Amino acid sequence: MKKIINDPNEFVDEMLEGILLAHSHDLKIAGNDKRALVIKDAPIKEKVAIATGGGSGHLPVFLGYIGKGMIDGCAVGNVFASPSANTMFNVTKAIDGGEGVLYIYGNYGGDVMNFNMAAEMSEFEDIKVETVIVADDVASAPKGSEDKRRGVAGLFYAYKIAGAAAYEGKSLEEVKEIVERALQGTRTMGMALSPCIIPSVGKPTFTIGEDEMEIGMGIHGEPGIKREKLKSADEITEELMDRILTDLPYVEGDEVSILINGLGSTPKEELYIVYRKVHSILKEKGIKVYRPYIGEYATSMEMGGMSITLMKLDDQIKSLLDKSADTPFFQQV
Amino acid sequence: MKKIINDPNEFVDEMLEGILLAHSHDLKIAGNDKRALVIKDAPIKEKVAIATGGGSGHLPVFLGYIGKGMIDGCAVGNVFASPSANTMFNVTKAIDGGEGVLYIYGNYGGDVMNFNMAAEMSEFEDIKVETVIVADDVASAPKGSEDKRRGVAGLFYAYKIAGAAAYEGKSLEEVKEIVERALQGTRTMGMALSPCIIPSVGKPTFTIGEDEMEIGMGIHGEPGIKREKLKSADEITEELMDRILTDLPYVEGDEVSILINGLGSTPKEELYIVYRKVHSILKEKGIKVYRPYIGEYATSMEMGGMSITLMKLDDQIKSLLDKSADTPFFQQV
Repeated sequence: MKKIINDPNEFVDEMLEGILLAHSHDLKIAGNDKRALVIKDAPIKEKVAIATGGGSGHLPVFLGYIGKGMIDGCAVGNVFASPSANTMFNVTKAIDGGEGVLYIYGNYGGDVMNFNMAAEMSEFEDIKVETVIVADDVASAPKGSEDKRRGVAGLFYAYKIAGAAAYEGKSLEEVKEIVERALQGTRTMGMALSPCIIPSVGKPTFTIGEDEMEIGMGIHGEPGIKREKLKSADEITEELMDRILTDLPYVEGDEVSILINGLGSTPKEELYIVYRKVHSILKEKGIKVYRPYIGEYATSMEMGGMSITLMKLDDQIKSLLDKSADTPFFQQV
Repeated sequence: MKKIINDPNEFVDEMLEGILLAHSHDLKIAGNDKRALVIKDAPIKEKVAIATGGGSGHLPVFLGYIGKGMIDGCAVGNVFASPSANTMFNVTKAIDGGEGVLYIYGNYGGDVMNFNMAAEMSEFEDIKVETVIVADDVASAPKGSEDKRRGVAGLFYAYKIAGAAAYEGKSLEEVKEIVERALQGTRTMGMALSPCIIPSVGKPTFTIGEDEMEIGMGIHGEPGIKREKLKSADEITEELMDRILTDLPYVEGDEVSILINGLGSTPKEELYIVYRKVHSILKEKGIKVYRPYIGEYATSMEMGGMSITLMKLDDQIKSLLDKSADTPFFQQV
């Protein structure tokens, strides 16, 4: 794994400079905080604002979804490290249009601590903040302990649904209720083939044999459920889907959206081979597929592997999913 | 490099099955030819149709750009192998809406031979066909021999401009003239860090040292200009930009669109670090940047590396670039 970078310690700031130069019509920084990115026309009046944040190295997560129909701002950390409470506070102040701010982020200790602190700082300045924590990774804690699970690619769905609801003019409480409902029906299972390298560390996040894969590995290389010989695409898909489908469970008659997410170096061709099998499994089970998303939605730099996410739909969630979006990393016409 | 696949010999057909299942509202096959993909509502009356084709393994190139505002159909070959003349003929028949068909494809021997044959077959059935061959890869032949150059990421711009012109109701001759003009001002330079594996072959397309890179390597692993020690992102970008800028040449006062394209396993973060330097170089030279595209637009499965493409703008090309598009792999709002 070789990198096209300059000074590893400048990795995040140089990336952000590039992003701001490329998307200067869409994004700006909040005040003087280079790690606080917000939508160009923030604050948007008479709309609930959506904030997120987290470590770098997961593009398009997190900041790539700032834009029309999605989220308003993002606190940007170093690679795989939580941003500061102060940066999240800066984001919050910059995006609040008077209707309050909904925090949506993945369930990681550092983020929870810092963003809770930012919420307190904000409320001290009379900005109303509510929080929804994304914990969609089935592999990271057993059924019954859903609140201990990590947040992974399901973040995309949370941003999409929350953003659409906010742009529809829903209140802070309503947006929160809708996203929570969407997330209660969202499950992800991933698998990894190869590690990534944090630029400032310079060595792989984990080692794995040339003929091995790991089921359930986290997007920072957190240990998964099991490591075994690499199987076929169909066998891998069957195993991931079996764990997803039995967890909620998803049952005959359900309608779901599907996200097949590449972790970084897995070709799009392979993601479609996975989708082919997902579609066949769901058809057999009488679960209807609506609006699949296939591509790189939450990565770990050059990590190899992929994840499958299902989100259960009802009429309202489906209608919000259909709304258009226009962000630097995601457009829906 | 491990792959999430089933039988390597089924790689292309299973991928196509997945793509058709995922994008059934947008795509269909022409008649019974599973390798002939066309836009769902083909033929579109009173519009010039755009056809392309080429080997698999380059998603979103080629078929990923079938859709509104872009192209109408694609002949799909095996990995890195030309599709047959007959498949291109099937595409042509399915998409011709009475205004003729423009072939746009990369400059590779097999494709040129097969698509010329398809054009003859089509004209025998009174379908008017014109051809534009994309040859944007500066590294593949010296200045003065531009017609010997290979087609790479510049294909994206050709599809975008041609598609927008066709949807504006321009005639076959007009669309051809506009695309040719756009391509006369389009140049690409790429570099590779690591190879990919053709599934049915099972071994890397080339070998390269852990500390090496190759400047100018082709998207099928064709030899480049030179192999050397891996340099910094800024140094690499300077070298590629120097070769691009002096080739046309692009000069002070020009306005260009830029495409920073990941070849497969290069993280988006790194592409933005490259863009940062591209922007700085162009600013210094007095060349104006308009609407940059950064991401994976023409890949080689899991190959590592990236390319930089510049397309010179005039008022008409700029206005066509701005038009919306909605395809399975590319949306512009």
